[in-house]
Parts: sequence; structure tokens; C-alpha cells
Amino acid sequence: IGSHSAETDSQTEWTDVQKKIIPWKNSTPSLDLEMVFQDRAAKLGKSNSRLIVVASLIDKPTNLGGLCRTSEIFGASALVVGSLHYIQDKQFQHLSVSAEQWLPLVEVKPSQLVDYLQQKKTEGYTIIGVEQTAKSFDLTEYCFPEKSLLLLGNEHEGIPANLIHHLDVCVEIPQQGIIRSLNVHVSGALLIWEYTRQQVIKQKQQ
Amino acid sequence: IGSHSAETDSQTEWTDVQKKIIPWKNSTPSLDLEMVFQDRAAKLGKSNSRLIVVASLIDKPTNLGGLCRTSEIFGASALVVGSLHYIQDKQFQHLSVSAEQWLPLVEVKPSQLVDYLQQKKTEGYTIIGVEQTAKSFDLTEYCFPEKSLLLLGNEHEGIPANLIHHLDVCVEIPQQGIIRSLNVHVSGALLIWEYTRQQVIKQKQQ
Repeated sequence: IGSHSAETDSQTEWTDVQKKIIPWKNSTPSLDLEMVFQDRAAKLGKSNSRLIVVASLIDKPTNLGGLCRTSEIFGASALVVGSLHYIQDKQFQHLSVSAEQWLPLVEVKPSQLVDYLQQKKTEGYTIIGVEQTAKSFDLTEYCFPEKSLLLLGNEHEGIPANLIHHLDVCVEIPQQGIIRSLNVHVSGALLIWEYTRQQVIKQKQQ
Repeated sequence: IGSHSAETDSQTEWTDVQKKIIPWKNSTPSLDLEMVFQDRAAKLGKSNSRLIVVASLIDKPTNLGGLCRTSEIFGASALVVGSLHYIQDKQFQHLSVSAEQWLPLVEVKPSQLVDYLQQKKTEGYTIIGVEQTAKSFDLTEYCFPEKSLLLLGNEHEGIPANLIHHLDVCVEIPQQGIIRSLNVHVSGALLIWEYTRQQVIKQKQQ
């Protein structure tokens, strides 16, 4: 690592980005790396939303890679994953088509989620679970706040009960089929789109 | 096949459904098999929309399997594929989670698409290409007719120029990222959702 000390700033920046992980607890290095991402994106004319997509409960690298691509395309401000190991996975990379180079990825383990969600609440985010419950809002009727955090459920278990208590709201996608449940990447994509659509309409009305 | 003549009606019906393919040119057997699907769905309280999803240009079994699941869940009236062979594919089956048993699949080869689209126009369908063109409508601004046919593009080539001429309209999804293009299953899912959302809102207003 010492042998790289002669790298240019630009190369150092790239090396930082290649780490692709922002430690959310250590605010100073986190801020630096987020700045690197935002600078690079701004130079390319990319605008970011105030949407955070939390995929820490998701297990399959294909779903995470797909969500990475979709989140990047809609300008989400970050994708939160349960482990940095997924990014090295061939299936993740195949589905993400290198979107992880343009989207800040944050590592929050499932065991850290309660702390993480509470911190984001204090930062003004509304914590939105994508889950079918007795009190869920229908996606056709839900109005997303500008600072929205989407928590996606596990492929098999959904969102565990202990986390449901920490949500501000649950939103569900009305489904008509015999096959009752959408793939989690698709569910996430529909909420990311719906957030984006509502923001676009709000901006046009201003 | 003669040896199956002792099967009950119910078993014969199931065998028909297992073929999963409706020959669109031969209207009588097609109608029969569509009726079988509609009867089964109605018995289970499933409502179908007037949305047809045409995926004949799509090559990857994973995308087709995913679209099958998503189309079924939102009650599309049919999914059109380029070949029946895809349904035997393990990757298709893995992604479709058996949705093909509840959704009519129609085989229309790419070379038959012009004829097929023109027939559907005479049946009152609006032919909607999911493609970025100079004249495309933004998905946030497009209002779907009740009888909508979505034509999805190939993973690499999109919709070929000779087919663009046969479309009534193109619709594109506004994308903000550096990675310019959504996966075709996700693109399709967003239009299927947007069609569904608009129909739900219309029904509530009546």
C-alpha cells in the first residue's frame, strides 16, 4: 500500500471509490467518500434524490445487483447492504452492470439496523417498510416525503416483527394474481419509481 | 395421445393448460384455451386487465421468467413470447415461480410481429413501444388506454426501426443515472405498474 503513495489525486480518488463502502458510524471518512461520489456525479450532470434504499435484509446477490442498477438509474442517494462481500459476487456484478461505481453503498448489518433506522429518523427521514400488514398503505395512495428511507424485506421472511415497530409506515403493492408476491427487486423498483414520479410531478408544479 | 382418451374433463383441461401456448392465428382453439384460463382465474377470484405484454423480442430466459411472474401478479391478460421453448428453460422456471400456469402465454415469433400488432390494432388495442426516441412520451405524462399493448425491446438492440413504424406511441422512462438503461424486466414492470395504477385510480373515480 505504501508503494502507491506516488499515485495522483485522481487515482487515489478512484481507489477510494473502488472500496465502495461508506462506514456510516464514522462520520468524517463517510462524509469524505460521499463527497467524492457527489463530486463525480455532479461533474457528469447527475442529480441525486433524498431517497435511501435499505437492502440489508436481502440475501440474493442477483436481487442486490439489480437493486444497485435500478437505484443508481433513479438517482437514489445510497443503497444500504448487509455485507460488503456481495459486491465481489459475480452474480451481483453481472446484474449491477458497474452501477456500484456511481452509487454510494453503505454497509449496515441486519443486527445494526435498529440503530441505523433510528439515526436516520433523527436526520429527518421517514422510515418506510415495503411489507403487507393490516395497517399498510396501498402504493396507489401513499405520498412519499422528500426524505424517504425504504426498508425492503428478506426474500422469504419479509421484514421481521422487531423491525416493524421501528417503521413510520408500511406500504404495500396491490397484487391481483394467483402468484401472490412480487420479486423483491421488482417491489423495490416500483417504490423507487413511484417516489421518483411523485418528485418529478412536484417539481413541475413549482 | 389416444391412450389419454379415458382422462376426465378436468385432467384434459389441465393438460391443455400445461401446453401454455395459445396459437393466436387459429381463433377457435385459441378462444377455447383462453376460456380455460379465464374460468380457472375467475374461480379463484382473479380479475384480468386488458393489458397485453409482448416480449417476443426478448432473448434472456431470466427476463422472460421475471416478466411472466410480474405480468401474472398484475393481472395482464396475456404474455406474448417469441418461442415456446423458453418455458422449458430452468432459468425461466426459476424466475417465473410457476406463474405461467395462471397467465395465458401466446407464441408470436419476431417475424410475425408486424402481422400480430396490426391484428391487435383492429381489435382496438393501442400499440405502445417501450423505447427512447425523439418523439417518446415521458412515463410520468402518459395516460394508458384501457386496451394497451406493451411492446418491449430486445436487451441489446431495443425495438428495430421497421417495428417502430407500426407503433401508435413510444413511452420512455426518465432516467437520471450514469448507467443509462434499466433492465428490460424492470422497464416492463414499471409500465405494467403504471398502467395498473392508472386503472385503479380510474375505477375509484367512477
